Amino acid sequence: MHTHTAPVRRTQVERCCWPSSLRLLTVCALIAGCSAADTDITLDAKATLNHRIQSLDLLVFVFLLALTVLTIWLFKHHRVSWLHETGLAVIYGLIVGAIIRYAGTNTTLVHMQVEPQGIPTYNAKLPPDTLWFKYPVNQTNATKLPEGVKTYAYVFRGQVYDIEENEIDLKATFDPEVFFNIILPPIIFYAGYSLKKKYFFRNLGAILTFAIVGTTLSAFLIGGVMYGCVKLMPNYLSSSFTFLDTLYFGALISPTDPLTILAIFHDLHVDVNLYALVFGESVLNDAVAIVLSGAIQNYGEHYSNTGEFETTAFLRSLSDFFCIFFLSLLIGAVMGCFTALLTKFTRVRDFPLLESALFVLMSYSTFLLAEATELTGVVAVLFCGICQAHYTYNNLSEDSRQRTKQIFELLNFLAENFIFSYIGVSMFTFPKHHFDAGFIITAFICAALGRAVNVYPLSWLLNIKRKPKISSNFQHMLFFAGLRGAMSFALAIRNTVSDARQTMLTATSLIVIFTVIIQGGAANFFLNWLKIPVGVDDETEQLNNYQVHSDVEGGGGGRGKTRLSSGADSNLDTPLDGNAATATIAAGGRRRNSHEKAILARIWGNFDTKYMKPLLTHSRPTLLETLPVCCNPIARLLTTTQQLTQDGSEFRRVDSDSDICIDNDTGNGLSQDGLGVGRRNSINRMEILEHVQSPVSTRIRLLGFYGKKL
Amino acid sequence: MHTHTAPVRRTQVERCCWPSSLRLLTVCALIAGCSAADTDITLDAKATLNHRIQSLDLLVFVFLLALTVLTIWLFKHHRVSWLHETGLAVIYGLIVGAIIRYAGTNTTLVHMQVEPQGIPTYNAKLPPDTLWFKYPVNQTNATKLPEGVKTYAYVFRGQVYDIEENEIDLKATFDPEVFFNIILPPIIFYAGYSLKKKYFFRNLGAILTFAIVGTTLSAFLIGGVMYGCVKLMPNYLSSSFTFLDTLYFGALISPTDPLTILAIFHDLHVDVNLYALVFGESVLNDAVAIVLSGAIQNYGEHYSNTGEFETTAFLRSLSDFFCIFFLSLLIGAVMGCFTALLTKFTRVRDFPLLESALFVLMSYSTFLLAEATELTGVVAVLFCGICQAHYTYNNLSEDSRQRTKQIFELLNFLAENFIFSYIGVSMFTFPKHHFDAGFIITAFICAALGRAVNVYPLSWLLNIKRKPKISSNFQHMLFFAGLRGAMSFALAIRNTVSDARQTMLTATSLIVIFTVIIQGGAANFFLNWLKIPVGVDDETEQLNNYQVHSDVEGGGGGRGKTRLSSGADSNLDTPLDGNAATATIAAGGRRRNSHEKAILARIWGNFDTKYMKPLLTHSRPTLLETLPVCCNPIARLLTTTQQLTQDGSEFRRVDSDSDICIDNDTGNGLSQDGLGVGRRNSINRMEILEHVQSPVSTRIRLLGFYGKKL
Repeated sequence: MHTHTAPVRRTQVERCCWPSSLRLLTVCALIAGCSAADTDITLDAKATLNHRIQSLDLLVFVFLLALTVLTIWLFKHHRVSWLHETGLAVIYGLIVGAIIRYAGTNTTLVHMQVEPQGIPTYNAKLPPDTLWFKYPVNQTNATKLPEGVKTYAYVFRGQVYDIEENEIDLKATFDPEVFFNIILPPIIFYAGYSLKKKYFFRNLGAILTFAIVGTTLSAFLIGGVMYGCVKLMPNYLSSSFTFLDTLYFGALISPTDPLTILAIFHDLHVDVNLYALVFGESVLNDAVAIVLSGAIQNYGEHYSNTGEFETTAFLRSLSDFFCIFFLSLLIGAVMGCFTALLTKFTRVRDFPLLESALFVLMSYSTFLLAEATELTGVVAVLFCGICQAHYTYNNLSEDSRQRTKQIFELLNFLAENFIFSYIGVSMFTFPKHHFDAGFIITAFICAALGRAVNVYPLSWLLNIKRKPKISSNFQHMLFFAGLRGAMSFALAIRNTVSDARQTMLTATSLIVIFTVIIQGGAANFFLNWLKIPVGVDDETEQLNNYQVHSDVEGGGGGRGKTRLSSGADSNLDTPLDGNAATATIAAGGRRRNSHEKAILARIWGNFDTKYMKPLLTHSRPTLLETLPVCCNPIARLLTTTQQLTQDGSEFRRVDSDSDICIDNDTGNGLSQDGLGVGRRNSINRMEILEHVQSPVSTRIRLLGFYGKKL
Repeated sequence: MHTHTAPVRRTQVERCCWPSSLRLLTVCALIAGCSAADTDITLDAKATLNHRIQSLDLLVFVFLLALTVLTIWLFKHHRVSWLHETGLAVIYGLIVGAIIRYAGTNTTLVHMQVEPQGIPTYNAKLPPDTLWFKYPVNQTNATKLPEGVKTYAYVFRGQVYDIEENEIDLKATFDPEVFFNIILPPIIFYAGYSLKKKYFFRNLGAILTFAIVGTTLSAFLIGGVMYGCVKLMPNYLSSSFTFLDTLYFGALISPTDPLTILAIFHDLHVDVNLYALVFGESVLNDAVAIVLSGAIQNYGEHYSNTGEFETTAFLRSLSDFFCIFFLSLLIGAVMGCFTALLTKFTRVRDFPLLESALFVLMSYSTFLLAEATELTGVVAVLFCGICQAHYTYNNLSEDSRQRTKQIFELLNFLAENFIFSYIGVSMFTFPKHHFDAGFIITAFICAALGRAVNVYPLSWLLNIKRKPKISSNFQHMLFFAGLRGAMSFALAIRNTVSDARQTMLTATSLIVIFTVIIQGGAANFFLNWLKIPVGVDDETEQLNNYQVHSDVEGGGGGRGKTRLSSGADSNLDTPLDGNAATATIAAGGRRRNSHEKAILARIWGNFDTKYMKPLLTHSRPTLLETLPVCCNPIARLLTTTQQLTQDGSEFRRVDSDSDICIDNDTGNGLSQDGLGVGRRNSINRMEILEHVQSPVSTRIRLLGFYGKKL
């Protein structure tokens, strides 16, 4: 519930509408005459200068991004693997930040202490929204004519905490809220939109455990250990930190970043289930962390009077956490489904431009709707993205599919690189850093500890029930993949009011920079060291290839994006392609019997295929077949002609995701042991081919959950 | 030079960072206790509320846009032609604006008059950037403890003009600068990027005359006539308007809007030269108008002391106008060419995502660079767009071509519909409207008059030298196509300080609404009435079709976009397709002999083909062939291997634009009379086919401007 997190404090005077290089202008002003017209002109010039400075600030970042893009190309061109693109962005950011810091001129704000004119008649609890201020102040310059005096408006910004600090440096820094309202939404939406649903749902239990239980556990552990350590420190820190502060730190440092590690996994075609675990967890734990930190903030500010543990306050925070998380999820899902309905029941797909516009507008309105109802826009947008990919995507025209994928891919790329550049730049330019070596070292240790607590005990717990165990190599890789990223930084920079918060920001920035550069760079090495299979083409793609071979008009739609950014890397998997499936299966016995499949995923899969997909997309079976006979009139209304008239291959293509998932599971049920891997594999391929060639009958045979004849 | 246009005045208190519904909160505050913590919580709640209100404001517009999209689809689906999409956006905007106005709650700002605390030591010419204000004010409440007092920061906003007006209504209104920094750039860039270069350059002389001379003429005429009329009016208006005000009005009402009319032209496949004239003019006159209005503003504020005519001040404004226009043009062109070089000499095209990102970043940095150097970003972005389309586009990978086209098409669509919705909404919600029937009627008449002066005398003048005359039907259509749109509105809402400016805003809004709805809706009818040929497929597309037939791998690149949004309309041109070319030629004898071709376009065309394209793209001839022998080492450096090794069809495809232009001109040189139209047409087609089959030799024969053997 981030809208509650004390915006008043956090906005403070960090970024103002009129940052200025006033010194220069003051000199100009003193040289020039003193008439009112002159003041106007000077003000005008100052405003122009401000606009120029703002443009320059942005220009610095845009050039930085362009430079990053070119260097990424160079690195990819020369197959450099020891430094990833996000690491590169951070390093460039650090360099530019240092230049701005040590070579740039200071821009400072001049302030003046004021009091109400005459006897104030305004007695409301809140300070007024605007102050009206006459300037030049005429009582001191009695010689000045009153007509030279003008009234200026000043707008409320927030509380001033550090009254001694009378000038504020303003260098390339942005309002932290920019991250939550502009940078994060496209990243998170794209994460949802590009989720590989099959493996996500197959590993749903593990992912949810890691994301929800793990993140909370990690947050509390880090919070507790940090609190203990801080209290042991001899310096002033021990007094400035409360347990809520360290808990907040635990919540913000727990989420792992999906970007860097997944880009590497994706380039290397790492094992799909590991990919799904890492991706699913890191996407969801971002959502958990933002809601959790909001709840902690609320606990401290609204519910608890003492800052100590209080049962009522704790329960209120807990209910906050769940309410906000699930309501945000609901809004996202509902808006996604609504978009699916719109695209299903109108023929807007005849006009791809309109269709894409509608898609973008509906997705953005999900964010706004959640924010307007005091929920968390980022969480809503994530689940909206998942629903859009799962349902709406199937209804879109080919053109819109490509367009929306490409647009969000580009937005995601730009936003991601921007935030990492900014993390680098802000290390030098952001005025609220507070370095404390002891805290930073403790934070590093605790971050690793938190990650370990997230991965190992939960893996052990999951492995009890889970037949295809999460192997210890996978566990190490999960631990190692715990880079910290955009979300941690955004949460840390949002609130830099107190010393404690500033120390936390510095530690968070350093952890992000370190993990992204070092862990991100060493990911390749670790993958080799842990013998994680790479060069694994996931089965969807294999299947699609078969489908394309046997049936030219099928498939194709979903694969456009996957290959986009891996042009030069595609030969990496060529030598391995022959035994790719073998490697996949040898990796850790991930295949599961249908009866061993997570019950949650199973129930959902059935419901989805029987009711949701027929309702929201053009897929078969239609609602006419899945609903009881008494509901036929309604079912007929909700079934389009296209749905009734399409042939098998179309229907096959549309909901290929869940089909393949279920088909594979059923197909593999017969041989679960480690033997006969090659044979099983070939059986799979044969079965897949067979399914493609006679999809409808196969489907009936395999799924068998409805008895009607098509 | 819009950065000079008195931002201090215009920002006034129109939109603040914290618009609030304070009344409700004040009540809450009075009920609650009075401790400092309570104030914090109330401030917090207020900030949250503000965030919610902002989100809601945006949500209203996003839903409005989604609704517009759906209705547009419905209209297109049912072939409704009497109301265009922009008209629809305006109408929806008006409805929603009225609802907000009459059903919404008031949100007002509370202000307090303040003075410096103690004896002010601050004597600079400018008011301070921030005021620090202690609240609650403790000297009046002596009973209150000093620790309850907090210091709040207030940020400078601008001058207050209307001191009587003590509460300001704040309903869904945006900072006018949003238009110049966010909404207009993508629209203008897309206009440049999607310009049909062939016809644009062919009609360059006429377009430049209409855009530069015509717009200036129209601005001064409207300014003069309006001034005369206003002075004749009996009411207070005559005293509040200066000549500079009416001249500014002339400058802002002169530019015509490219969006609506061209969407109609495009759907109907109207005659290509008329299309080029209208498009080229309306795109360029936006650029002229923004620079012109900036120069007028500067004249009044900086150069002239009296507001009357002064030669020096006039000349300074004039030089401002030309400097800013041409420097902005230069920056745009240079950045466009730089991007072309980047994409030519790196292999970034191997990674389409990186390439698209680079393209977007470079285009955006053009805007920022121009703004940072006090030039006009919108103008720079226009010419950047033209260069990107002319050079960079040819270097891009197929994937990036499509992606950039699609992204900017979508951005353009959204921005365009947003601005028209906003025009409708702001009619009711913007607090600075000032209705004056006399002024509005005069403004309508003057706008029509200005357009007439722009079109008819200049057409007459152009027709003296121009062999293929601009027929009187075309002139009427040009006159009629003078809708006013986004640029006029943005310029009008930018500055609403005085009564005069507010009256101008109201008149401008009404003119925009009227022309977009009525003229836009009647465009079809007028096209029929004036017997303008519609359903004309332009020759590029015809040629491309032939190229595709004869040579599968050629062509294709440039046509992706053209067809995107005209899916259901494409059958419109099917019945006409057979005699399309006939109709085109019969329309007004637009074809020209090569020796009659505008000298300007001719010189540029030669220079472009000989030096610019070889340098900036992979096209043939290479610089090795066009530069003198002494420059061979440099030429070799600037020529890529791809350029040297590519075959004819590739080279053909790359610079098809200028080729076709020159080929056609030469081909048609032999029969200029009205007879033998059918035969000429068939000759053209034969020649085109021949060119495609042996492009290199044909090219040498036809152009013959360099003697070397390929």
